[in-house]
Parts: sequence; C-alpha cells; structure tokens
Amino acid sequence: MTFADATAVSPAGDGRFHGGIEPGWDILGNADGGYMMAIAARAATHALGRPDPVTATAHFLRPGTPGPVEVATEVVKEGRRFGTASATLERDGTPLLRLLGTFGSLESSAAFERVDGSPPDVPPFDDCVELEPTDTFPPPFMGKVVVRLHPEDAFAGGVPSGKALVRGWFALRDDEPVDTLALLVGVDAFPPTAFNAGLPFAWTPTIELTAHVRARPEPGPLRCIFSTRFITGGFLEVDGELWDSTGRLVAQSRQLALLPA
Amino acid sequence: MTFADATAVSPAGDGRFHGGIEPGWDILGNADGGYMMAIAARAATHALGRPDPVTATAHFLRPGTPGPVEVATEVVKEGRRFGTASATLERDGTPLLRLLGTFGSLESSAAFERVDGSPPDVPPFDDCVELEPTDTFPPPFMGKVVVRLHPEDAFAGGVPSGKALVRGWFALRDDEPVDTLALLVGVDAFPPTAFNAGLPFAWTPTIELTAHVRARPEPGPLRCIFSTRFITGGFLEVDGELWDSTGRLVAQSRQLALLPA
Repeated sequence: MTFADATAVSPAGDGRFHGGIEPGWDILGNADGGYMMAIAARAATHALGRPDPVTATAHFLRPGTPGPVEVATEVVKEGRRFGTASATLERDGTPLLRLLGTFGSLESSAAFERVDGSPPDVPPFDDCVELEPTDTFPPPFMGKVVVRLHPEDAFAGGVPSGKALVRGWFALRDDEPVDTLALLVGVDAFPPTAFNAGLPFAWTPTIELTAHVRARPEPGPLRCIFSTRFITGGFLEVDGELWDSTGRLVAQSRQLALLPA
Repeated sequence: MTFADATAVSPAGDGRFHGGIEPGWDILGNADGGYMMAIAARAATHALGRPDPVTATAHFLRPGTPGPVEVATEVVKEGRRFGTASATLERDGTPLLRLLGTFGSLESSAAFERVDGSPPDVPPFDDCVELEPTDTFPPPFMGKVVVRLHPEDAFAGGVPSGKALVRGWFALRDDEPVDTLALLVGVDAFPPTAFNAGLPFAWTPTIELTAHVRARPEPGPLRCIFSTRFITGGFLEVDGELWDSTGRLVAQSRQLALLPA
C-alpha cells in the first residue's frame, strides 16, 4: 500500500472526512506521529482545495492504533494565496491529534534567495545503513518508509556517537515520489536524537511538531539532519532539515518532546 | 498600562472572552503579532486553568487595530500535566489570529539537563541601544516594551551588519516582570532580521509563529538572539532564543514569514 493510499481520506460532509490508520505504520504499537499528521493534513488540503502545507503544527494528544479514523476540518481563513485550516484526527469522537496549518500551492518561484547552509554531510545512499523493520526496534514503520542512516550515527553502527544528531536519507517505498504531504512523515521518521547522544532515557514523546514546507521535492531520496541543542526544563527540541536531490531545502521542522519524568 | 492590563480578558460564557487591543502596541498602525498572540494565549490559560504556555503556535490571519476583541476558546484536551486549547482572536466575528497551544504549570524541575549553547553575546544592558518609540520607525510599540539592541546590529548604529541576525535585551516597561505570557511578546518584539542583513525588501509579514517556553524567567531583562538562515521559496524563518538573567534558556521560537512578491 502506497503512502498516498495509507493517508487517503474521503469526504463525509460538513467538513468531516473518513480515513484510516493502516497497520504497519507503527512504532512499538503506536502509529508514527508524522504519519498521523499527514492524514490530518491531507483532509485539510481537501477542505481548502490547496495542495501543499506551507506551515503545519500538530499537537499529539493520544496514541493512534490501526483502524478507522475521522478528520474534522474547519476552514479558518480563505485568502488569495493561502488558506488556514484546523484538522482534528479522531477515533470514536476522541481526538488523537489536532493540526493547525496554512496551505497553498508551492509552485517554484523566482523570488530572492539567500541560503546560509547546505545539505547535511551524508555519505551516498548506498553507503548508508538501511533500517529494516522488526516487531520491536527498528519498528514496523521502517517497512513503510525508507530510512538510511549515516554510518557514524547510532543504530547504524550500534554505537551512539555522543552527539544529539541523526543524519541520513528518507524516501518512500517502491519509488513513490515524496510529495509535500509525505514531507510531514519525513520530519518525524528518524530515530530520536536522544538515542544517538546516549542520554539516560529511552523514549521522548512528541508534544508538538511544526513543519515548514519550502518547496515540492524533486524526485529522489532526501538528505536529512535532526539535532537537539537544549534538553532543559523537562523538554527537548528536535530541529530537522530535509533537502532534495537538487540540493534544495524543502522542509524545516521543530518538535517539542517530553523527557520521561 | 501594564502588559498584564493590556492583555487582560474577562469571561463572556461558552468559552468566549472579552478583551481589547490597546492603542500604542502597534507597528505602523498594526498591533504587534506577539502582543495579539499573548491576548489569545491568556484566554487559553483561563479556559484551561493552566498558567503557562508550553508550546504555542499562532497563525496570523488579519492585522489588528486598537479596539475591543473577543477570544473564542476551545479546550481540545485536558490531561494530567498538560492541556491543549485553541483560541481565536476575533473582531466582529472575523478572525484575526488563530492559536493552538499546549499549556501547563512550569514549576522548576530537577530533570536531566544538557545544553549545547549559551546566552547570546550581548553587551551589558546599559551599553546597548534602546529603541525609542516614534510615530513611524521605531514604532509606537517600542513605548510598550523595552528593546535594547546590540550596538553592532542595525538600527542601533544605523548600518546593517550584513548578517541576518538581531541581538539585544527585552524587558517590559516600569520593571513589570516578564512572565511566560510576556515571553510571547518577547519572541516577536525585535526588528526583522532581514532589515539587518540589508536585504532588498522592507517588510516580512509573519504567517505563523511557534514559541516553546521552557521555564518561567527569573527577574531582570532577557538576552535575546534572532537569526535567519534560509530565505528561499518566497519564505524565510526567524529563529529566536530568549535567556533569563540566570543564564537559562526560557523560550525558543521560530516564525515563518513571507517575502513580498
């Protein structure tokens, strides 16, 4: 089943959409957050009639398991270039995730550009270490996407580097193109930075994730980097960048995650 | 009038609150975005009975001018440690801003900490250049907050540094303590990074701003840094950090702004 099929929604009237959390998109039984976010965002694209998330924020309320879901959308504003919508992913009336996003059509533009940065230093795709799905870790979710890690980063060689940094490649299975909705999965597909730093906690649940999408990716795997600078106050951020095969930044993300108490 | 008074809201039943955009909190006639965000966030704190924003995202829909406003809140989830709410700042039923946030009580914690970073290199408060309000620029808003810029940054000495970087101090007037709601103003109080870089556009309207609040600030002005790395696809991000007088990171922010077409 493609990503497009696994995130498909159908209109149910009054701004509501039917969809489903498909089996296999989980990490230890709970659906990947970026995957759930993509389902909600797809419903918002339909509600607004605009194909691309420009900036989307998800607050993660409850874990998701396979089965039918509904997305309740609300159009907050319709503008000329952009539209803003709220989308709540629900099961049996209980919200699992709330998304707020501004959407538009990311045609390539010839606007002024100035980039202070470059794609992350990641070895060629074939030289990186693919995470193969297992029943536990790496999780089943790795069978639905392609994540290849920098050999120097944790899980690739088995030794945490000591840096709160994870780098690698992201793609969809079976050469399915990564569209702007799939970028929402890409920004939440890698192992936690905390793991790689060898920090004394095993799991950092996401409270909120915001992704900015700058452009539609050109075909090919994406070079990705995720890093954490501040573990403080019981929280940590994870900053992400996704770069396409032409060396263009296509998404920037930040999530706030919780340290186990 | 204090910040607390300028953002006060009173319950109007059914999750709605009365408030007002006060005169003088504007930039060329439009209310500061962080100020409007703080009004919406204050209503959300009341709706949830939780004092501190932990992560709050605002999408800016229409400019705000002085006068009465209403905030329509919706409690999305009540959890043990956190609650999530939506808050829409409206005038005459038209939304100006939509906020989605998770709130809690940021008591100091003894959790594991690891910080890869330090407060920005800003000269002492008295050696920085205060932005005094005028009718145009610096804007009237500067009479409501205290912003003192690093002498090397634009507007302080009059010469853009060429770097998309703005550093300085933030405080409220009359020694009013900066609480976690006032941090939402702090993350949007400085001149645009683009100005300082001498880029060929004069104004970059904010589409969306997300702030993570890590801790309640200790008394005293805050050291702040704002920077932009990616001007691409017709957008730019502004990343901010606010550090309190004890050298602790209290807020991290990112906004997505639009290049004029």
